[in-house]
Amino acid sequence: MFKNAELGRTLTEARYDAAIPKLRSSLLNAHFQLRNQKFPFIIVISGADGAGKGELVHRLNEWLDPRGVSTFAFWDASDEERERPAYWRFWRSLPARGRIGILLGSWYTDPIIRRVFHKMKGRKFDAALDRITAFEKMLAAEGALIIKLWLHLPKAAQKSRLRKLEREGRIAPDDWKHFKLYERFTKISGQALRHTDTLAAPWHIIEATDRRYREHTAGRIILNALTARLKLADAAKAKAAATTPSKSGKPAPLPVPKPRTLKPAGSVLAHVNLKQKLTEEAYDQQLEEQQTRLAKLVWGAYEKKRSMVLVFEGWDAAGKGSAIRRVTQAMDPRLYRVVGIAAPTDEERAQHYLWRFWRHLPRAGTSTIFDRSWYGRVLVERVEKFATPEQWGRAYEEIVDFEHQLADHGNIVHKFWLHISPEEQLRRFKERQTVDYKQYKITDEDWRNREKWPDYARAVDDMVVRCNTPFAPWTLVAGNDKKFARVQILKTIVQRLEETL
Amino acid sequence: MFKNAELGRTLTEARYDAAIPKLRSSLLNAHFQLRNQKFPFIIVISGADGAGKGELVHRLNEWLDPRGVSTFAFWDASDEERERPAYWRFWRSLPARGRIGILLGSWYTDPIIRRVFHKMKGRKFDAALDRITAFEKMLAAEGALIIKLWLHLPKAAQKSRLRKLEREGRIAPDDWKHFKLYERFTKISGQALRHTDTLAAPWHIIEATDRRYREHTAGRIILNALTARLKLADAAKAKAAATTPSKSGKPAPLPVPKPRTLKPAGSVLAHVNLKQKLTEEAYDQQLEEQQTRLAKLVWGAYEKKRSMVLVFEGWDAAGKGSAIRRVTQAMDPRLYRVVGIAAPTDEERAQHYLWRFWRHLPRAGTSTIFDRSWYGRVLVERVEKFATPEQWGRAYEEIVDFEHQLADHGNIVHKFWLHISPEEQLRRFKERQTVDYKQYKITDEDWRNREKWPDYARAVDDMVVRCNTPFAPWTLVAGNDKKFARVQILKTIVQRLEETL
Repeated sequence: MFKNAELGRTLTEARYDAAIPKLRSSLLNAHFQLRNQKFPFIIVISGADGAGKGELVHRLNEWLDPRGVSTFAFWDASDEERERPAYWRFWRSLPARGRIGILLGSWYTDPIIRRVFHKMKGRKFDAALDRITAFEKMLAAEGALIIKLWLHLPKAAQKSRLRKLEREGRIAPDDWKHFKLYERFTKISGQALRHTDTLAAPWHIIEATDRRYREHTAGRIILNALTARLKLADAAKAKAAATTPSKSGKPAPLPVPKPRTLKPAGSVLAHVNLKQKLTEEAYDQQLEEQQTRLAKLVWGAYEKKRSMVLVFEGWDAAGKGSAIRRVTQAMDPRLYRVVGIAAPTDEERAQHYLWRFWRHLPRAGTSTIFDRSWYGRVLVERVEKFATPEQWGRAYEEIVDFEHQLADHGNIVHKFWLHISPEEQLRRFKERQTVDYKQYKITDEDWRNREKWPDYARAVDDMVVRCNTPFAPWTLVAGNDKKFARVQILKTIVQRLEETL
Repeated sequence: MFKNAELGRTLTEARYDAAIPKLRSSLLNAHFQLRNQKFPFIIVISGADGAGKGELVHRLNEWLDPRGVSTFAFWDASDEERERPAYWRFWRSLPARGRIGILLGSWYTDPIIRRVFHKMKGRKFDAALDRITAFEKMLAAEGALIIKLWLHLPKAAQKSRLRKLEREGRIAPDDWKHFKLYERFTKISGQALRHTDTLAAPWHIIEATDRRYREHTAGRIILNALTARLKLADAAKAKAAATTPSKSGKPAPLPVPKPRTLKPAGSVLAHVNLKQKLTEEAYDQQLEEQQTRLAKLVWGAYEKKRSMVLVFEGWDAAGKGSAIRRVTQAMDPRLYRVVGIAAPTDEERAQHYLWRFWRHLPRAGTSTIFDRSWYGRVLVERVEKFATPEQWGRAYEEIVDFEHQLADHGNIVHKFWLHISPEEQLRRFKERQTVDYKQYKITDEDWRNREKWPDYARAVDDMVVRCNTPFAPWTLVAGNDKKFARVQILKTIVQRLEETL
């Protein structure tokens, strides 16, 4: 089964670097088109321990539009999960139509592990695989696009990989225990893959020894699957509405409004020294150092059952997304979730404005990173007048109380405002309009927000002054140099964790 | 504090019977108006053990429109709840705008109990009460209508009440333990009530010795609070739109379409003997007997960590709601939830059609009663062509597999189709149009559905034949006589539980 994945395939750095920009831009473009489609895209990532599943998840989150992706890592079941039928936890995690769900671990993990350790008989194993097939077919029948990636490692490669992880303090508790059963694990996995390789939800086995090869291959498989489905969907649409011409999903080029001179920012922000910079060299060195420290600290927090709640706010184009990725790269995917906050759903709209944040709070020992947050109440809702002065006026106290409850419970709460100058924002907006795979990032709304810079600056000022508490401090990040900003954020989190743990 | 609630107030049966119909009709009318309002109504029910809190919840569910009420009983926290800040579980349970949330037990229970048992110092207790006040004020500031009912029992009354509950097998494990601390419990509760009695969320102490008095009083308090708020809301609306006249929330009388002769039902349904009846006397006796047995069995199921999943489907006006109430009357409110299925929310619409049912599955030992269910896929969605023949065609298998998973996990799954004749339906429709507090129950859609009786009968036939499995059987209920139907349902559940436990 896995012989074809032990051929020693690699990709040189040169070929990788040449291929990735195009792959990325195509992936983003396809992802952009998915948004308007009525089907969810489920990517199951499984495979050998140490095969780079977590790293691949990081990479995919980097390549895709993070606002349209949810990543779920399945680990030990909670008591609420154990008290319901086994698939309850998977149903909780399915992506909605128009979104991508990356599942790290899945309905495959439990049957395979139990079968490997002889806790499940062959007949029951077959029944479990039948159930999986039925489940996947059912989702596919309702339109879900499902692909399953199996990352395979030859035995020697797995051993050296686990050693390396161990040195970096990033090994999971069961990894060595599983390694001793390499042959049995391979055999059972092979059975599972053969049994569940269907047209509705095909398996793709990827040789995982070489990082560049496995990432590029995974990216291509995902792109091909999505592109093929989008073509089908377009064709169906064209057929349905034969009178109206079929549209390409690619967005029309955006108009370029005349730039304006903007007033300088409010008083707190005026103290941020935006001239701070890092050289490429210093950046590489410090990034690696901080990420290594963070990786260990995050496991330490897990062992002590301490959770982090990190909030990222900032100007449009200030680099929130890429800064968050530098943080999550250092974290085991099982230990965090990134929650992107956009417009509320109707269920959320029917509740108190804080309700939608409560529902995403992390379990003990894991962390939630909010890409935008409850501060929307005193930023966009204030400036755009979605909230009355009375509403946003009392929100400061409500927010401080909310964060107090988190801190009281032992959560480590930290908030970042990514600050840039209006001039730097303009430069980045223009760049986004010209770089192919960045176009999706800039909208008319960004330009409109920009015109309200002074209003936002005043709101940021109030927010920082009124909600900067010892238990949930604000850090103003000097963001004109992205490298400096990323390292500043990492250092702040590392320091906070070292003080707390 | 509680002296005014020890006056020995009672209400004679005659006065109760005279007052209730009007109260009920006013409550329903007010509840109906709430639907179109943008505020949630939170009713907290607390008080002494054995004071009839559970009974009151039953009564309110009977008096209000069950589709607009969610009842939450807070019991031991799950590990997922313990791993988050304490209020997470309450946020999960807040009603949406336009809905009523009845909270049995609440944010008050834990501080009071811990303080009573000296597990919390006075200063921490005060801080906990401050937090409560802030929380309630915050919800109220966003529009929530909050009232809190405290059911008080004098010591002697509590003792005799607990004895009675014990005889009926309906006593909760901690009740006697708490009784020994009656004086301390009363003192601490008094402190809590004084501390948290605010304009935003006022307390109402109700003398609870006499069932009729406490229910009538609670009903009046709820009605007054809701009516006053609705008036305010109407006045605000009228002021806002001074040009358009303020509308009374009462629905306009419905048109009476011409009745039609309908074909008899499909083949399976044709075998239901609709002539079966019960005399008033036999009904009273059998209802009580079956409810008593059910009450004990439900506690038995809880001890064995077995859950029931009950499904109620049936013709419009077949009496689903009142039949469900006869079942839930026998169940401790902590042990079940009724989930009414109406149109999906947008979050639900963005998922596979089974997703919205998975999310409501009960924890081990507790039960979920679905008032309409996943069978909508093969009933209304089939008949109204919301689902394609291919979709509803494969749904039978999907549903059987879903129920199989529930049964495999140990859930006791049972499904009821409430059957009536077309003639009986017509009679009930007409009655609903004339009885004041039943008018809200009949809509144009009911008349439209009625015209499609033969289509629905065919769909019911297919559904019963294809999804009647040993692990999740269908029971066809003879519903022309409501008394017979209710007892038939209770007997079936009792028998099923006795066989299973």
